[in-house]
Amino acid sequence: MPQTDHPPSAFDLATAVRRAEGGGIVAQLDPSWDVGGGILHGGYLLATAARAAVLESPHPHPVALSASYLRATGPGPATLAVTPGPAGRTLAHASVVLGTDAGPTLAVQATTARLGDEPPVWSLPWPDVPPPEECLATDAGADLGGHPVPEVGIRHRVQTRMDPSTAGWAVAEPSGEPVMRAWVRLGDGSAPDPFSLVLFADVLPPTSWGIGRFGWAPTVQLQVLVRALPSPGWCLAEARASEIAGGWLDEDCRIWDSTGRLVAQSRQLARTPR
Amino acid sequence: MPQTDHPPSAFDLATAVRRAEGGGIVAQLDPSWDVGGGILHGGYLLATAARAAVLESPHPHPVALSASYLRATGPGPATLAVTPGPAGRTLAHASVVLGTDAGPTLAVQATTARLGDEPPVWSLPWPDVPPPEECLATDAGADLGGHPVPEVGIRHRVQTRMDPSTAGWAVAEPSGEPVMRAWVRLGDGSAPDPFSLVLFADVLPPTSWGIGRFGWAPTVQLQVLVRALPSPGWCLAEARASEIAGGWLDEDCRIWDSTGRLVAQSRQLARTPR
Repeated sequence: MPQTDHPPSAFDLATAVRRAEGGGIVAQLDPSWDVGGGILHGGYLLATAARAAVLESPHPHPVALSASYLRATGPGPATLAVTPGPAGRTLAHASVVLGTDAGPTLAVQATTARLGDEPPVWSLPWPDVPPPEECLATDAGADLGGHPVPEVGIRHRVQTRMDPSTAGWAVAEPSGEPVMRAWVRLGDGSAPDPFSLVLFADVLPPTSWGIGRFGWAPTVQLQVLVRALPSPGWCLAEARASEIAGGWLDEDCRIWDSTGRLVAQSRQLARTPR
Repeated sequence: MPQTDHPPSAFDLATAVRRAEGGGIVAQLDPSWDVGGGILHGGYLLATAARAAVLESPHPHPVALSASYLRATGPGPATLAVTPGPAGRTLAHASVVLGTDAGPTLAVQATTARLGDEPPVWSLPWPDVPPPEECLATDAGADLGGHPVPEVGIRHRVQTRMDPSTAGWAVAEPSGEPVMRAWVRLGDGSAPDPFSLVLFADVLPPTSWGIGRFGWAPTVQLQVLVRALPSPGWCLAEARASEIAGGWLDEDCRIWDSTGRLVAQSRQLARTPR
């Protein structure tokens, strides 16, 4: 269980890792953080791996995580094999391999450090977006022009309020740009932390929906950088593709906290229907 | 030696890997690809690791590489420990650890596949930049307002022609934006390939120079995505920081080939002088 000064959130509990008797780190992967079909959400898995890296590090926060998604991961008991690398006063490196009874499913390069509260020397300003209450709820069961949002776990666990200008796909009028922008927060209203930012980095619908190309876009590799401790409240996430070609899709995501500070960034390569 | 239909370039030779007698993959890291102080260039090292991943893969091209820079790496003999992951018809995963007599120095998650020539469904257009002959040469020894570019290996091995609008730092007039844009090609004029794109992803000066904050910015983690086979000629690279804070700097880099197609992207987290 992470050391915090507030009661554990559902997310804290679902991503908890612990030392096993006899050595090693284990977790119990929670079936209610799925994306459908018994497959767990990629950001949820990466946040769990980040907890294992921190458990073996002298530093408390994940600052850079680069993950290869080897296989789809289902719920149940998992092992987290942490191989520590060099560790210094500023940062520490480790590799983490998450495995289930199906074998290794996620391989991660993890860098940990202590995030401070220094004001930025330079920071990208956040985009102009209507407040959450004027955006489109796309949580589980929400009605999108007659099509309900699927009742998969992640759409219960994370609340999403889409910027209407990037939500045209929901009413069969894609914007024509591979961009998604939404306010996000944990479903139980808990404040964000560096681990939930890792979750949020993979929580928007595929950007390819913005150009009317639907279907699932499984992640191949995902890098998340956590840049600052987020303030309480909604976070704003914006994902953008640079190129969609040959069955491949990239997505850059930036996340700002409720004060407008850039707190995380990610990039992923995913497969997309041709 | 890579299988190609042209004579090997200096870059091909310097990044070559081979199977050792008795097993394993080895390389001879070339001292002439340094950044000064006997330290080798990060993109050069990642390209060498990519060759090891491809040697053990059914697929010929690196498409996603995520690397942790564990320690500075010097020249000389190196081992490349490749641990293959799942391999399918479309892509294969592996981890690669580059080690020298100083121990492991670079840990990489590698995804390999076959890059095709399908036209993009969506692609970010390239920025408007003057042609190379109207840009500022920043190769080794070039005179930048009385300050010569250092005679380090990488500035001989890669030719750089900076967009004047992002080269103000060279004449003590930083642009005020953490952006660098330049035409790049191999020093011997060889055509780019997926491996040299990996090199180019880390070859521009630190973007922090654009806001007048000089000094070296050692890479902590670097992810490179190779999106398409590049056409011959100069490539255009554009790097941009989103946030500089607390001694950390991120850089997004995009690379277009001479036809204007986006062929690679990268993101890195680096340390920067406070």
